[in-house]
Amino acid sequence: MDINMAKESIHMDSARIITEDGFRLDRASETRFTVSNGCFAVRGTSEELYDNETPGTYVAGVFDKGNSAVTELVNLPYPFGMRIYIDREYVDLREWTVGFHRRELDMARGVLTREYAAADAKGRRLRVRTERLASMAKRYIGASRIVITCENFGGVVNVENFIDCNVYNLKNNPNERERHFAARTSADDNAARVICATKDGDYTVAIAVNAKTRSLAKAGCIGRYSRDFGNYAAVYDDFEVEEGAVIELERVTAFCSSREVSSDLTEKTVSGRLAEGLKTGWDKLLAEHVREMENLWERADITIDGDSEADKALRFCLYNLICSANPLDEEVSIGAKGLHGEGYKGHVFWDTELFMLPFFTYALPDYARALLSYRWHKLEGAKKNAEAGGYAGARYPWESADSGLEETPSWGFDYKRNKVRIWTGDIEIHITCDIAYAMREYVRASGDTEFLRERAAPVIFETARFWASRLEYDKERDLYDIKGVIGPDEFHEHIDNNAYTNTLARWNLRYAAELAAEYGAGSGVTDKEANIWVDVADKICVPRSGGLIEQYDGFFKKQDVLITEFDANQMPLWPEGVDITKLGKYQIVKQADVVMLMHLLGEEFTPEEMKENYIYYENRTMHKSSLGPSMYALMGARTGQHGKAYANFMRTVLTDIADNQGNTAHGIHAAAAGGAWCAVFYGFCGIGVDAAGNLVIDPWLPEKWNGITMNFHFLGRRLRLTVTHGEVKLERLSGPEGLTATVNGGAVEL
Amino acid sequence: MDINMAKESIHMDSARIITEDGFRLDRASETRFTVSNGCFAVRGTSEELYDNETPGTYVAGVFDKGNSAVTELVNLPYPFGMRIYIDREYVDLREWTVGFHRRELDMARGVLTREYAAADAKGRRLRVRTERLASMAKRYIGASRIVITCENFGGVVNVENFIDCNVYNLKNNPNERERHFAARTSADDNAARVICATKDGDYTVAIAVNAKTRSLAKAGCIGRYSRDFGNYAAVYDDFEVEEGAVIELERVTAFCSSREVSSDLTEKTVSGRLAEGLKTGWDKLLAEHVREMENLWERADITIDGDSEADKALRFCLYNLICSANPLDEEVSIGAKGLHGEGYKGHVFWDTELFMLPFFTYALPDYARALLSYRWHKLEGAKKNAEAGGYAGARYPWESADSGLEETPSWGFDYKRNKVRIWTGDIEIHITCDIAYAMREYVRASGDTEFLRERAAPVIFETARFWASRLEYDKERDLYDIKGVIGPDEFHEHIDNNAYTNTLARWNLRYAAELAAEYGAGSGVTDKEANIWVDVADKICVPRSGGLIEQYDGFFKKQDVLITEFDANQMPLWPEGVDITKLGKYQIVKQADVVMLMHLLGEEFTPEEMKENYIYYENRTMHKSSLGPSMYALMGARTGQHGKAYANFMRTVLTDIADNQGNTAHGIHAAAAGGAWCAVFYGFCGIGVDAAGNLVIDPWLPEKWNGITMNFHFLGRRLRLTVTHGEVKLERLSGPEGLTATVNGGAVEL
Repeated sequence: MDINMAKESIHMDSARIITEDGFRLDRASETRFTVSNGCFAVRGTSEELYDNETPGTYVAGVFDKGNSAVTELVNLPYPFGMRIYIDREYVDLREWTVGFHRRELDMARGVLTREYAAADAKGRRLRVRTERLASMAKRYIGASRIVITCENFGGVVNVENFIDCNVYNLKNNPNERERHFAARTSADDNAARVICATKDGDYTVAIAVNAKTRSLAKAGCIGRYSRDFGNYAAVYDDFEVEEGAVIELERVTAFCSSREVSSDLTEKTVSGRLAEGLKTGWDKLLAEHVREMENLWERADITIDGDSEADKALRFCLYNLICSANPLDEEVSIGAKGLHGEGYKGHVFWDTELFMLPFFTYALPDYARALLSYRWHKLEGAKKNAEAGGYAGARYPWESADSGLEETPSWGFDYKRNKVRIWTGDIEIHITCDIAYAMREYVRASGDTEFLRERAAPVIFETARFWASRLEYDKERDLYDIKGVIGPDEFHEHIDNNAYTNTLARWNLRYAAELAAEYGAGSGVTDKEANIWVDVADKICVPRSGGLIEQYDGFFKKQDVLITEFDANQMPLWPEGVDITKLGKYQIVKQADVVMLMHLLGEEFTPEEMKENYIYYENRTMHKSSLGPSMYALMGARTGQHGKAYANFMRTVLTDIADNQGNTAHGIHAAAAGGAWCAVFYGFCGIGVDAAGNLVIDPWLPEKWNGITMNFHFLGRRLRLTVTHGEVKLERLSGPEGLTATVNGGAVEL
Repeated sequence: MDINMAKESIHMDSARIITEDGFRLDRASETRFTVSNGCFAVRGTSEELYDNETPGTYVAGVFDKGNSAVTELVNLPYPFGMRIYIDREYVDLREWTVGFHRRELDMARGVLTREYAAADAKGRRLRVRTERLASMAKRYIGASRIVITCENFGGVVNVENFIDCNVYNLKNNPNERERHFAARTSADDNAARVICATKDGDYTVAIAVNAKTRSLAKAGCIGRYSRDFGNYAAVYDDFEVEEGAVIELERVTAFCSSREVSSDLTEKTVSGRLAEGLKTGWDKLLAEHVREMENLWERADITIDGDSEADKALRFCLYNLICSANPLDEEVSIGAKGLHGEGYKGHVFWDTELFMLPFFTYALPDYARALLSYRWHKLEGAKKNAEAGGYAGARYPWESADSGLEETPSWGFDYKRNKVRIWTGDIEIHITCDIAYAMREYVRASGDTEFLRERAAPVIFETARFWASRLEYDKERDLYDIKGVIGPDEFHEHIDNNAYTNTLARWNLRYAAELAAEYGAGSGVTDKEANIWVDVADKICVPRSGGLIEQYDGFFKKQDVLITEFDANQMPLWPEGVDITKLGKYQIVKQADVVMLMHLLGEEFTPEEMKENYIYYENRTMHKSSLGPSMYALMGARTGQHGKAYANFMRTVLTDIADNQGNTAHGIHAAAAGGAWCAVFYGFCGIGVDAAGNLVIDPWLPEKWNGITMNFHFLGRRLRLTVTHGEVKLERLSGPEGLTATVNGGAVEL
């Protein structure tokens, strides 16, 4: 069954295959067809690399500022280049008649296949099939198989395997385009290579590529040679072919960066990796990669029965998350756009900890541990951020790259080159408690007490210290305020006592005090300090108005405008008369803020409060962030707002497959993908952890769905939950016995 | 009136304008719309520079071998790059709807104009007009004017003026592609620059570009900045525009090479030239360029009345010749493909001396003097060539670049990579007497006795010495043979006593002896040596068979096959049964050989012999060289073969405008262009010089033509010849009185 998404060329043929038909140079599809293993990623541009494509090749953690306004994930040379020449004429598909062109992303195996049949003006018919993968088994290796069929002509076929250094960050933006490296290319019959030194000198990356002939039918290789053009390097094979000839090649791309070895060893290492990869060969590289992918899916898969669109789109979300992370690398985390594009410059936001992390925490805890360790490794940077602002402890940056320092620019330009002050890096400080929260969530799910003691606790103590110093005491009210912040709803800046921020900061202080008590003297926290944390936490101002939480001090005094009109996609339209340059005037919000708080700290609210707030705020939400729908799906399910829950779930789960935000070209919406998983896990399956640390399951299924089957981990066990309209089934697949869960209100022993 | 050429997009609107309609990325038009001033040339690729174009930027005399098989004219960075972005979106015409796109080459003024109107999916309508020229007044300066009209949108328009180093010799050939330089780019608000050092280290070329705002309507410049990307460099201007805005810019490209100044001065010099050019401004740069062009046309123009197709196509030929030469540079000459492409690697062949030179000799004698001086400057190289072969004197190379040494490769590869021995560099030695002949022709027409003594005589003596040593004496026949050569007809290799070669060699020896006698002791030639030249010349074997000249020893014994079939363009088809891998077996020839000899040394043949040989050889000519038709036109007119004369004239004159050889993409056919002039001058106008040095005019006009008006120089006079069917009119426009000419057999005093 084919399901047509918003872009009609994109559909999903089977539960695990995303298909694009037709020869298109579509930037959203470049993102969708990225191959990535969390160590390196290459966007889904054609092998030929046409100048109207936007190539992107990234090595996780390799950042540079150079001439850019901010530090960016570096777009490195394109290593998947392969061009075909027939009797010295380049097979340029823009000039050929393309009879058939299909790309298939097999998510189960992690293999992208491209196949096309084309003919030129002379009537020569060519068929080409390429497969590519970023190995999950050897994370520095990319592998391809190429099959060229000369349907009705003989002559000489030349295959050029190349690395191209003509790549730019923000290629399509004349104001911000930058090339973040100096490249030194070389080529011989064993490889085309490039060594890149980033402009600021922080990193060296070496990439090497070569191909070998796999099989030949009616064809013979008549020569191999190589060329180094300074800006690109290539290895060439000439084949003399007869009509009907089939040339089959396999090629390997090897990466190495100074993040792994010293700068002067990158070239040697990459050459060794390339040679080893070629020796291993496609069959074995493919097999070990697929084995790893299957293993990952076994741990992480979800099936939604009865809604194939949701089922497949959710799998695409999970696929993108899996491919964005690398459990072997604790010094990197997942950017807001994955490793799939340059949106948000590869920076890490709260998106990772609160939207993506839950998936890893419950499905792939080793990944979660590595991702959270990134924050622990950047603790020194976070301390510097706090110090720079005159505060104690650690303040995590709103945008984080490789140092842990704040990477958000203070100033930007609007498109008329007017200077615009950007405040998020200064005052959107809730990320600091978000990180502490995510660490607790991981520990609670995994029982990883070693991580808690060694890595989480230092973070939680330092963030508590930040909050304690950041609070302002109001003697008159005997309350502590957090003034001048931005909450998750970024329509309102420089606000006081954002309920979300204050409540989570309170939680952070209290949890830090608990941990200090637990660890005692070894914690490095004095009793006095811990007592202060408890005292100030109790007096943090959280504005309320009956059951309704006021998003921040004075929100309810803002002008209340009704959202009444929706576009064709059921997305809200700006109410008439709203001045979008002064959004702070109105009670309209960008995305979930109070509602998100109620998800995170649900134990602090009654079901009635949750429902009341959900209805109030959902009616006032413009959904101008891709982070919003997942939370409204999740909380819609938990508060019985079922229509909203399903609609918002479909919105979040289809974000990139349907490009419904219109900017998938710049990378995946990794938080929307993670949020989709959260909506299923916390929302539809209703999974939570109670105060005693026990699993609570209280599902609700959209009517359309027959059931959900979901694999996840809890306290060292692999579990499988199956939810249908009539039944909830929780199985233990592996791990120790003796787990108690509360299912639909009743205790169950597994 | 529009005349449609073979490529229907190309037509000629007025006598001096070549027009292309439609947005095409056509490689033949890149050649046709080259702007060149003989010092530098830039092929007619778009300002945007799409990757399916073939940019070519050449500085005359800048050659390099690098990794190529032979020394090549270096393809330098593309300096005419200009891209437009609207609200940061690149105006890529391949993605826009192009409502109108026209290019006009104004040959009278030497200005290429491009104008287009296009709209994008958002309905924004843009109109752009660019003009470009390679200044004839300041040969190191290129200038452009750019007018951008924002028909129905406001926003920010960004204009990027760039130099792109991603250029290659033989870009489209995977086997021979090369980048012949290392580039160092830089950019600041004053310029985007590149300094190129050729791989072999022989040359440094600096190029700098910048634009300035000329006028703005409904638009304001809101920022200028620059970027150096290592492989390209650019200067950017951001304009805030209203609907209907018009942005007008002028830009200057400056060149400097180490051929003019020392390597370390190129950058400084180019910056100075750029600044001066920008200060001078478009209006003045245009005016002084046009003045120079008008001056050139005044001296060189021909009008064919009654045949506008022939008239305009001939003017296009002359335009290309004018733009390929630089009278200020004696160290370069014109390659077989002009400065318009990479065919024949920019090498200079006999094409220059025998096909192009006559035009310069008679129309622009200062150009002729410079072009012939190139050979004088390379005399040392020619002597080395002779020495390398064990001969005395000077042997000019079949293919010549910057050293005068033989540049023809000894080995090549066929397209299946089989090694093929190339013999022309070894044995197509007639070029050596061709050069001597061209010098005599120049001197005879110009009366430049200083050139004769200082530059021509040394060449004529050294070439005579070569011939004297190259001859082989056959005691039995008491004759001198020249064995193992290739004549102009390259179908027959390793032949003995080619009539063309032997007769011109004889002429060379005799003329050398004459000059030696004239100059006496100062000539450096002893009486003894001069006497030997006369003796051996008299005994050079020239095979004849009655009035018919045998092309070489044994030609008439070859298999005689009849050419009976012709293609749609009246080009001969291979006779059935001919084995094209063994063409030496047959009496079929590639191009004029004996017939060409009869043009050059007409005084040695009777009219009856000329006619007999013309008919015999023309019937056996396959016309597989673009050099052939002009000679068959010329000699057709002189021998009364009028149908053949006109048909062959149209063939030669349309070569590049109609791309009738199918390879205009690789550069103009400069010999076909020059040959067209020769056919008019020597053929239709019947102009020659008799033994006494007097002008002889014996015209014949194709029936279709009403008349020819032709300007030329003779012995210090500027003359105008007007030929109609009833009348011949010769006017003296300037210069001394007292010229006697023989017109239609009768003496005329001017």
